[in-house]
Amino acid sequence: MYVLIVYDVGEKRVSKVLKFLKTYLNWIQNSVFEGEVTEAQLHRIRTQIYKLIDSEQDSVIIFSSRDKKWLTKSVIGKEKNEIDVFI
Amino acid sequence: MYVLIVYDVGEKRVSKVLKFLKTYLNWIQNSVFEGEVTEAQLHRIRTQIYKLIDSEQDSVIIFSSRDKKWLTKSVIGKEKNEIDVFI
Repeated sequence: MYVLIVYDVGEKRVSKVLKFLKTYLNWIQNSVFEGEVTEAQLHRIRTQIYKLIDSEQDSVIIFSSRDKKWLTKSVIGKEKNEIDVFI
Repeated sequence: MYVLIVYDVGEKRVSKVLKFLKTYLNWIQNSVFEGEVTEAQLHRIRTQIYKLIDSEQDSVIIFSSRDKKWLTKSVIGKEKNEIDVFI
């Protein structure tokens, strides 16, 4: 399935979240990841994010769709940023 | 149609983008808006964003879907932030 994850996480935890999400998904914008994962992987992602963040301060929103075809994506401006500056 | 907009915009332009998007969409996270708009409204949003941002530095990604039902949304952590602190 296709997933899109946007996060707003405190500075102290952001690099851990970013490194973890990179193992499953593609980074498409500052604080935004997308990619294809299985149901089992999505479950693992949820569980791990829950462990990494502070639920009272941080917010992570996961959008998922059975098929990417239901979603149209378009970019205005820069197509892709360099992830390295954030690590 | 349902739209989801994520943006990474330079500090100087961010408040204009935020104020503009608020007129059409709901703010759901820092730099993330969602909502239901018509095709005509989406066209207007694209045109206006293009005018407001610096295309060489900023990035705005628009996801759209004919129907919200194709997308499942779940939140880990804080459900919603206060927009006022960003304006």
